[in-house]
Amino acid sequence: MTICALATAPGGALGIIRISGPQSLEILSRIFTKNLTQAQPNTIHYGHIVEFVAVPHIVESVAVPQRHATTTIDEVLVSVFRAPHSYTGEDSAEISCHGSRYILNKVLELLIQNGCRMANPGEFTQRAYLNGKMDLTQAEAVADLIASTNQATHQMALSQLRGHFSSKLVQLREQLLKLTSLLELELDFSDHEDLEFADRSELMNLAKEIDNRVTHLAMSFEAGQALKQGIPVAIVGKTNVGKSTLLNALLKDDRAIVSDIHGTTRDTIEDTIDIQGVTFRFIDTAGIRQTQDMVEQIGIERTFAAIDKAKIVLWIIDEEPSNKEIDSISQLTENKKLIIVRNKSDKADNISYNLLNRPFVAISAKFGTGIDDLERAIYEAADIPALSDNDIIVTNARHYDALTRSHDCIQRVIDGLQIQLSGDLLSEDLRQALDTLAEITGGQITPNEVLGNIFKNFCVGK
Amino acid sequence: MTICALATAPGGALGIIRISGPQSLEILSRIFTKNLTQAQPNTIHYGHIVEFVAVPHIVESVAVPQRHATTTIDEVLVSVFRAPHSYTGEDSAEISCHGSRYILNKVLELLIQNGCRMANPGEFTQRAYLNGKMDLTQAEAVADLIASTNQATHQMALSQLRGHFSSKLVQLREQLLKLTSLLELELDFSDHEDLEFADRSELMNLAKEIDNRVTHLAMSFEAGQALKQGIPVAIVGKTNVGKSTLLNALLKDDRAIVSDIHGTTRDTIEDTIDIQGVTFRFIDTAGIRQTQDMVEQIGIERTFAAIDKAKIVLWIIDEEPSNKEIDSISQLTENKKLIIVRNKSDKADNISYNLLNRPFVAISAKFGTGIDDLERAIYEAADIPALSDNDIIVTNARHYDALTRSHDCIQRVIDGLQIQLSGDLLSEDLRQALDTLAEITGGQITPNEVLGNIFKNFCVGK
Repeated sequence: MTICALATAPGGALGIIRISGPQSLEILSRIFTKNLTQAQPNTIHYGHIVEFVAVPHIVESVAVPQRHATTTIDEVLVSVFRAPHSYTGEDSAEISCHGSRYILNKVLELLIQNGCRMANPGEFTQRAYLNGKMDLTQAEAVADLIASTNQATHQMALSQLRGHFSSKLVQLREQLLKLTSLLELELDFSDHEDLEFADRSELMNLAKEIDNRVTHLAMSFEAGQALKQGIPVAIVGKTNVGKSTLLNALLKDDRAIVSDIHGTTRDTIEDTIDIQGVTFRFIDTAGIRQTQDMVEQIGIERTFAAIDKAKIVLWIIDEEPSNKEIDSISQLTENKKLIIVRNKSDKADNISYNLLNRPFVAISAKFGTGIDDLERAIYEAADIPALSDNDIIVTNARHYDALTRSHDCIQRVIDGLQIQLSGDLLSEDLRQALDTLAEITGGQITPNEVLGNIFKNFCVGK
Repeated sequence: MTICALATAPGGALGIIRISGPQSLEILSRIFTKNLTQAQPNTIHYGHIVEFVAVPHIVESVAVPQRHATTTIDEVLVSVFRAPHSYTGEDSAEISCHGSRYILNKVLELLIQNGCRMANPGEFTQRAYLNGKMDLTQAEAVADLIASTNQATHQMALSQLRGHFSSKLVQLREQLLKLTSLLELELDFSDHEDLEFADRSELMNLAKEIDNRVTHLAMSFEAGQALKQGIPVAIVGKTNVGKSTLLNALLKDDRAIVSDIHGTTRDTIEDTIDIQGVTFRFIDTAGIRQTQDMVEQIGIERTFAAIDKAKIVLWIIDEEPSNKEIDSISQLTENKKLIIVRNKSDKADNISYNLLNRPFVAISAKFGTGIDDLERAIYEAADIPALSDNDIIVTNARHYDALTRSHDCIQRVIDGLQIQLSGDLLSEDLRQALDTLAEITGGQITPNEVLGNIFKNFCVGK
């Protein structure tokens, strides 16, 4: 079945309608002023999208075959792609229309009248997967790539789209297969009753190495999630210490960079900033802004909750804290990264604060000094894993789930080896570990339900 | 200078970045994995947009020429167009990216770093005009086409884009030139003092014919405006007569058609409906909905105001009106189209209302019956001029202004002919009429100020 969908957001100068399927060029030729059925791949064609309207035509009281009048819908450019060298792997086309809703709806309507059906969310990518153009992790990366809003999420998605995660999984699979064949070898030998159990140290080492790798991947999930959703930061401190001024200084600094050059506006999620391509999300800052006169002391409930959700805590001070206060904030942020921020650094009298030798950042939120230092400190506190091409970060809950289950299987193999279980008892767990990893890329037959879940969150047109 | 801009609305599966200018393919090749400087026109190229990052490189304490590391930004398709066969008439390209804001901003940033500048609103179309690819009316039609939301505005814009208005203006210009040469001929003859004034009836007929055409065009402006903005309709009637139920029935009927097939949502401008491709706009309907128990009688201020702004008035009744009421609504709507709507037609007792032989439409807003009849009646009352290709409707205030001024000039010519002014006195007015018409298409040199005004309301990227 040939499918069609609007692939761009409505409202721009241009709108792109995408078609894919065996009948793409035939259907398109019925509403286009040129016949594209013989068009060369990767070529662009100028013409009009037209609607043929049947006109009743009667000659001397006898109905003769209907004539057709045409109404022009738009002047367009059509890009032609041919199977298998297209995104979906099928014959396909893209119609570049003027971005009017009326036009875009009308062209979709004409395509449907002539034999297309509307694509489901992600159906183009699903077809790419089903036609072997990409595996499931790559398909999922397409959605992540489109949703990426900063350098970190973008790099993770692009790396996954380019198959880096997939090839890690291929390596794991090869090691698991090696382990399987070693076990089978052992089984063959053990048929000869006169032979002892083979030396299992090689098997054990291999199994542990595989498990390390799987665990390493699974553990990257938390970091991936933080990068995807923004690393949570809490700003705490006494009333009038300059929390909201500081927040504004941080926000403003970030926005100035973004808004100037690009000429496009972005959906600003209130109160997040990007530092070196990583998003930091301020917790409950609306509350902090509005309740300056309520928050009298660190320690009230709202602050507790904010600290609890944060990975990084900024403690703003503008006078020398008591030792008790320093102890109490240290205790509260035991499992967090605490950054002490000495605000109002323009006032000379605060230079010699006794902070029990704890490191601090001196800033003036009002005059914007020290903000760069603070951003560096925040970035360092986030402890972002290096995002080189070799470091895979798992960002997808489905992958995390499969990796965890795979780890359990391999752990059972390791336990079995330790208690000298026989190879035939271990091989079932190994097979299950292989299957579970295969789920991730969709190498095995993937149930429709799983596919449905993966693609339902895509945008239509991708 | 080579310009770039995002041509699609942010937020879709795809985002298209457009580049135009002499350096388009050179600049693009610097950030693309293929060299496109020799690419054939109208071809599509798959590759990666990459960022080259300088890496300091020191060999045995001696700095050697910098090496570059590349970061991939996106997998893209690039469409290449060559001067003069492109939209702008210049070398140009379109990059089809994944629709992530991060990616789109990054690609624009790279283009700018490599020598492009951000395009101003409408600058691509302005270049198309300056390079003789279209005249000003066609350029203006591009913006109208993108903004078109229904069949009527779409057809008007498309007709103008395809040059139908321009060719009308060419015809007018030819007739004005003919009139000018006839006048010059007369002047030549009148040098011979023995000859009488030539027979001026031919001149007069020609001038009147031209003026008719100009006036006809100018008069279409009002209809054009109504079509562009939606034809205003007021719904009036007593409390509980079913006004809001009727409005909902009309709105629902319209929306059901639009939302089902297309899978895309549209910006619904509250309380407008499309009938046969024409938009009708309900006046102050929010008020009508909320004030059912306030509006006790036709005749309160709000209703007066609504009727005043309307072209069509729907008077809803659910009981037999008195003769006085019929007279009073007739008087109130003297210059309007009045449609009497007999609601609650499901109740048998209202069949024999005496409406002083006025036509009416019987409906049941509650059960949705008669709504089609009512829509037909509304459409007929709107008295839409036929929108054939030969009927030009002026929709642009700038065009209307020039036509009106041109009409004044021609009128002075006609007056001059009548009082037997000599040809040399008339020719100045004729020249002015020609210049004024030429303003519309921009055939003369158009001041930057005028161009600025025309293009400033375009979207960026078109």
